[in-house]
Amino acid sequence: MHIDERSDEPIYQQIYRQIHDGVETGAYPPGSRLPSIRGLADDVGCSRNTVEAAYRMLVAEGYVASRPGSGYVACDLALVSPSAPERPVMLGEPAPCARYDFTYGDLEPGTFPAAAWRALTDDVLLSVEGVGCDAYNDPAGEPELRAEVAWRLTTQRGIDCTPDQVIIQGGTCSGVRNLLALFDPRDVVAMEDPGYGGVRAAVERARFAVAPCRVGDDYAHFLDDLDASGARLAYVTPSSQFPTCQVMPAALRARLLEWARDRDAFILEDDYCRDFRYRERALPPLATMDRDGRVAYMGTFSKSLSPALRMNYLMLPPTLLERWRAVFEGAYAEVPWLNQAVLGQFMHDGWDRHLRRIQVRNRRKYEALTGALREEMGDRVDVLENGTGLHLLVRVRDGRTEEELIEAARAGGVAVYGTKRYWARASAAPAGCVLVGFSAIAEEDIAPGVRALTAAWFGE
Amino acid sequence: MHIDERSDEPIYQQIYRQIHDGVETGAYPPGSRLPSIRGLADDVGCSRNTVEAAYRMLVAEGYVASRPGSGYVACDLALVSPSAPERPVMLGEPAPCARYDFTYGDLEPGTFPAAAWRALTDDVLLSVEGVGCDAYNDPAGEPELRAEVAWRLTTQRGIDCTPDQVIIQGGTCSGVRNLLALFDPRDVVAMEDPGYGGVRAAVERARFAVAPCRVGDDYAHFLDDLDASGARLAYVTPSSQFPTCQVMPAALRARLLEWARDRDAFILEDDYCRDFRYRERALPPLATMDRDGRVAYMGTFSKSLSPALRMNYLMLPPTLLERWRAVFEGAYAEVPWLNQAVLGQFMHDGWDRHLRRIQVRNRRKYEALTGALREEMGDRVDVLENGTGLHLLVRVRDGRTEEELIEAARAGGVAVYGTKRYWARASAAPAGCVLVGFSAIAEEDIAPGVRALTAAWFGE
Repeated sequence: MHIDERSDEPIYQQIYRQIHDGVETGAYPPGSRLPSIRGLADDVGCSRNTVEAAYRMLVAEGYVASRPGSGYVACDLALVSPSAPERPVMLGEPAPCARYDFTYGDLEPGTFPAAAWRALTDDVLLSVEGVGCDAYNDPAGEPELRAEVAWRLTTQRGIDCTPDQVIIQGGTCSGVRNLLALFDPRDVVAMEDPGYGGVRAAVERARFAVAPCRVGDDYAHFLDDLDASGARLAYVTPSSQFPTCQVMPAALRARLLEWARDRDAFILEDDYCRDFRYRERALPPLATMDRDGRVAYMGTFSKSLSPALRMNYLMLPPTLLERWRAVFEGAYAEVPWLNQAVLGQFMHDGWDRHLRRIQVRNRRKYEALTGALREEMGDRVDVLENGTGLHLLVRVRDGRTEEELIEAARAGGVAVYGTKRYWARASAAPAGCVLVGFSAIAEEDIAPGVRALTAAWFGE
Repeated sequence: MHIDERSDEPIYQQIYRQIHDGVETGAYPPGSRLPSIRGLADDVGCSRNTVEAAYRMLVAEGYVASRPGSGYVACDLALVSPSAPERPVMLGEPAPCARYDFTYGDLEPGTFPAAAWRALTDDVLLSVEGVGCDAYNDPAGEPELRAEVAWRLTTQRGIDCTPDQVIIQGGTCSGVRNLLALFDPRDVVAMEDPGYGGVRAAVERARFAVAPCRVGDDYAHFLDDLDASGARLAYVTPSSQFPTCQVMPAALRARLLEWARDRDAFILEDDYCRDFRYRERALPPLATMDRDGRVAYMGTFSKSLSPALRMNYLMLPPTLLERWRAVFEGAYAEVPWLNQAVLGQFMHDGWDRHLRRIQVRNRRKYEALTGALREEMGDRVDVLENGTGLHLLVRVRDGRTEEELIEAARAGGVAVYGTKRYWARASAAPAGCVLVGFSAIAEEDIAPGVRALTAAWFGE
């Protein structure tokens, strides 16, 4: 290594540059050992801090790695994905580089109200000098945020509750896992079949047995399955069943509540897309019909605000609230104080306007998508949707499998997603049914995306 | 209700004021029903939104509550603690209003670098327009933060690891709970006795059996207990045993690693106070001696940055990392993207200076506390500490119980904390031993606090 002490370039920068170039050019082949910090510092005649600073940059940028027992080694740049963090693929198969990506879950860039969040973070940290950050926070959530949520549940969703009953949680799966801590580990959890895989995985990670209850044929077998399950908790999505977009009929809702009362069981109602309704008024939440304190109600901020802020809430009926307090007495919070303080303030100040903006945008996307599907595909497909939420199902009835449809779409530059995974037995899943989401795609890409999909599937 | 439409005071404010005053004066006694929103709007001749706005303020301020089935009712103001959220009491007994509070866990107000955090939040949200907030984030953590942690583990703690092995978690108990998901639910978890109650509670909530292993008598029985436990995971705090402040001897460390290797078991090393050392160099972490990939290493930001940001990290050995990937494949992140992005930036830019500031402050507090104890109490007490961490134990040898000591201190305006709770069998705990923390108390309160404690205990 050549170090020029008279150069304007700082020494750490010279070290950085030479190793960087060496890795880039292959002078240091992947896996080859680099000089140790101490050795290089002695060699160059500089402090170890100087060498450390250079190595730190190299490690942070992925040129160099520290390997146990080998010191520093050169990385294989072919494996370095520039600035692409290893993101979990939530829906599975399609390559993420499709021209038109009808993924579900992620939101359209710009959804998050970054400017408001910055301003409110400033306010919160200035107003109390961040004092909330210096102490452990309440594991049930910050009172202001709980009051804002309770207020909206009461006035906008007809669910009578107090702020006490609202528990702030770190996302749907965390909420489910913590709720399960209130049950006996031998209890069975009934789940809709097909149903939301994220929750099923969380239930299984918590080692509870899952009893699938069929929602097909208009829920014809649901109650029989539920009765036979012996479950003490049933996880349901009555306003828009995931993934089939069915609405649970009113009569079944009443029977479900009776089941819970008669069996001393509880219901977890996941009302994940209540914020987004595009047609007639939906049925009110199951929780509004609950006279026996059997329904725990769960809502999310992941679709209206940000999936990466990791906040949602549970509203617990009195019996479960009492169990919660016993089980989580002295536990630590899972949701950071600062995020709750800012969201509480945002719900107080700007939430309604923000939500309307997102609602309007999603309604336009919903109309663009259903309109384009009708126009381009007509009766060659069945579209399953109920005027809510952020996805629908498209079923092609010509005998092709979902894998064939996904692959054909992919070849045409379009990403759509499989649904078989949501069935407890994949063989029970209807053939040729794919999930088409519209939370992340831009409105102007929807019509061309559907045209590309039509061409890919039907050769037009 | 009297509404003056010509008043400058907005109608919602008039409604708010009259109900507020009614509850304050007892005109609306606690539990009494208030007018419904619809009824009051009709009555006053205003919109329901107006009444809602007033009720929302009243609910948020605790004057009014919404009760299932009863609509809105007046609250009992005797139960309203003004602006004091119901905080979990981490250490138990003493009243939180002591003049001198030697609590442990919470930090001194002003510890959190609020100004830097505001500036970096601005930077992060401006630089990418908060785009990270619009998509699900990596459940293992953000790459930049993981690289910063790995860099420091490698260069400052001698633990060779790659950023891949570092998993960002939402606090010690969350990290432990997730680590347990890699084990069989019938596995036994060995824990130090006495030991950290928060982790024990988390293990028990996850329904794992706990095997206490005695650390008393210089760890004389520890290995025997461990051998007999059949445990597959041992949770230990070798650098400063919580709560006894013992350092695990080097010979025992080697035996512990052998135990793990021979039994196909793993060790979770919680190095919670490595950042704070005030005397001779401590023994290096157990993880630096681990040649067989048996040690998972856990570190925290709760003592150096904020207990309310809910972030810590695990460094997993290859075997556990592989299990982690299998179990948490497709799981959702538990730690918000924004907090990780800001912390990653802060560790890159300002961490070392911040940490030094907190280290210097804690060293001064440590010296003030040990000095004052020596000077004021002399050999009337044993002080158990090892020149690290943020607490020590004080044992009074005149036969008084911990309850008597805590009560005497309380009467003298000083809060100290019990230790019996940390023993698996409280009867095995030494008599008259209390915990004295210095993370939250101000430096200038330490000497007067110790004088007050001396007076309270020994009547001087």
